Amino acid sequence: MKRPVITLLTDFGLADHYVGVMKGVMLGICPDAALVDITHEISAFAVSEAAWTLAETWNCFPPGTVHLVVVDPGVGSPRRPILAEAGGHFFVAPDNGVLSGVLDSAPNSRVREVTAAAYFRQPVSRTFHGRDIFAPVAAHLAAGIAPSRFGRPIADCARLAVTVPVQTGPYEWSGVISKIDKFGNLITDFDSQTWACLSIRPFRLRVGSSSVSRMVTSYAEIGPAEVCAIEGSAGFLEISAREKNTARVLNVKPGDPVLLSID
Amino acid sequence: MKRPVITLLTDFGLADHYVGVMKGVMLGICPDAALVDITHEISAFAVSEAAWTLAETWNCFPPGTVHLVVVDPGVGSPRRPILAEAGGHFFVAPDNGVLSGVLDSAPNSRVREVTAAAYFRQPVSRTFHGRDIFAPVAAHLAAGIAPSRFGRPIADCARLAVTVPVQTGPYEWSGVISKIDKFGNLITDFDSQTWACLSIRPFRLRVGSSSVSRMVTSYAEIGPAEVCAIEGSAGFLEISAREKNTARVLNVKPGDPVLLSID
Amino acid sequence: MKRPVITLLTDFGLADHYVGVMKGVMLGICPDAALVDITHEISAFAVSEAAWTLAETWNCFPPGTVHLVVVDPGVGSPRRPILAEAGGHFFVAPDNGVLSGVLDSAPNSRVREVTAAAYFRQPVSRTFHGRDIFAPVAAHLAAGIAPSRFGRPIADCARLAVTVPVQTGPYEWSGVISKIDKFGNLITDFDSQTWACLSIRPFRLRVGSSSVSRMVTSYAEIGPAEVCAIEGSAGFLEISAREKNTARVLNVKPGDPVLLSID
Repeated sequence: MKRPVITLLTDFGLADHYVGVMKGVMLGICPDAALVDITHEISAFAVSEAAWTLAETWNCFPPGTVHLVVVDPGVGSPRRPILAEAGGHFFVAPDNGVLSGVLDSAPNSRVREVTAAAYFRQPVSRTFHGRDIFAPVAAHLAAGIAPSRFGRPIADCARLAVTVPVQTGPYEWSGVISKIDKFGNLITDFDSQTWACLSIRPFRLRVGSSSVSRMVTSYAEIGPAEVCAIEGSAGFLEISAREKNTARVLNVKPGDPVLLSID
Repeated sequence: MKRPVITLLTDFGLADHYVGVMKGVMLGICPDAALVDITHEISAFAVSEAAWTLAETWNCFPPGTVHLVVVDPGVGSPRRPILAEAGGHFFVAPDNGVLSGVLDSAPNSRVREVTAAAYFRQPVSRTFHGRDIFAPVAAHLAAGIAPSRFGRPIADCARLAVTVPVQTGPYEWSGVISKIDKFGNLITDFDSQTWACLSIRPFRLRVGSSSVSRMVTSYAEIGPAEVCAIEGSAGFLEISAREKNTARVLNVKPGDPVLLSID
Repeated sequence: MKRPVITLLTDFGLADHYVGVMKGVMLGICPDAALVDITHEISAFAVSEAAWTLAETWNCFPPGTVHLVVVDPGVGSPRRPILAEAGGHFFVAPDNGVLSGVLDSAPNSRVREVTAAAYFRQPVSRTFHGRDIFAPVAAHLAAGIAPSRFGRPIADCARLAVTVPVQTGPYEWSGVISKIDKFGNLITDFDSQTWACLSIRPFRLRVGSSSVSRMVTSYAEIGPAEVCAIEGSAGFLEISAREKNTARVLNVKPGDPVLLSID
């Protein structure tokens, strides 16, 4: 059998012992697993931020990977633990919409409510289901237990409304900054089809109090005092300065509007 | 042989190369080891903080795990390196009390002074025993070298005074905030037996300038403007607000007193 | 075959998903690899900082380790991807001088331009060669593909000027602070031969507005209000206070001069 891979995506941070504890639980169940951190720096309780990050990441992993997602403001409440199969991967998460991006992009998916307490760590606490439910379920799955053993399919799992740009005029669209990365790049929700269109027509992107009207194909083409549009690595339009923190230069934050107009 | 697990707990942070260097040394000795970070964000030189974290974490790992702990203000001084066997796990650390929590909870333990320089990385520096003594010893242990090969048992290893709440009146106890986690939850040193008692009687917890008199069993029961007591995932009483950083709301820090009174 | 080791050294930080994405790509190609983070906290675009860190780290890993370095301000420009063999290790990086420290210390090295697109992830983006070129090349190398398959040797790879102290008087040298670590230790560019000399003669080190004239062999010898010189773990002279952040005490930063005079 190929070495199983389990990814971890949480809002736990790395200063506390919570991530280590989940890894200990998983290695006790599936000793051969490769455990890979996506990030643990999701803002506390930020389900939609985690959903975006997971959607950008999961399909860079090999088929059969188990993705463990614990951003769980509802821990201890009746919200369900779920297990999804989608695109040849597995996902274990609370039923709060955090899998929305994955389920949107991989339509032939199946979602189950996880009810098989035999696979939980006992006793189950009311405040740390990451340790007691999600991690052990992910590890048993990685160790080869069939998804059907964990619970029955459900059709009503929680879904977040997906943000996509809306048309606001004959030649105008309104989108948002989905994410600002460590380098300060602004990742928008305009996809690469928009980009294909822009690359042949004059355009204007307004973000904060600035305006961007030049598209480049690499950072190296951006002038020292310039801010440009560029196709990002995940196929979304990004806005970048060169070797500068663009978000700080433009004084903008995630969620801020990005207005596109085409001549 | 089962894949060996080595955990790492240090105050090195993740910005420098020190943790990577220790992992390189260990993989050279025990290539099959699964290396798991507990945390590297222990405050610099904070032995008691590391002791608390280790005590909360070690027994979530499978039996036979080697726990490498390097919070070592005495590096280069005559403080001894030690190897402890406790609860079916192994611990490699400086003899400064950092294993106190483990040794308190696993009474049939054996502690050795590590003297077998054949298992050290040579030459041994005076400032980085993590690389030159602790990591190689942990890796040789994980690779199957018997504990007795590293040195003789000792009976006088350093122990920290353990903080437990003290009774200050007929119905009053004084404890402390042991730890504040990333979410701002206040983890106290009142254990779950105290909790069992509180759950049937009216009580008052005073922390900072605030007072808490409601116990909940999950975060979901906490009202938006409320601060409640809750049984934490490790069996200690915690004080939490809902989806808010409780420590910031109450303006408190680790070590601050928590006063419990029961009617 | 022994388990392959791949190290990662980037300026990506740990908050974004970029490091996880590279690991997913590598595990898809080389599932048995042990993936070890050196650090991802190199300052954005700081090639020389990464070069210093790599030089301090690589030879603590076992022979045959593949070191993946992605600090790449020139991504998308014509700068070449390179693969170096040096000291029995492999290095995959952009050709921007980031391997200078390694190549300086391991003279019988061979450097190739990586041109074999068959080993890239397709399509290759213009903004994330870490994912599309460097990670897959590192993983194929770790999986056993011969270096010669990736491209032809080159003789003109980029090299950074190495900082070494310069003699400024009959008994005076001028060096710099190469690095300040998490503990605040000042790591200078004076090497251990200088140290051997100092240990027998009176000296004075001037850094910021302070002066250091005592050498110790361990932190434990440093007095509470004292700042001393000490041989660091990599053989450079360091300047340290005891259980205090020396850099903050002396108000200095990386690159600041360190003036040495010997009586």
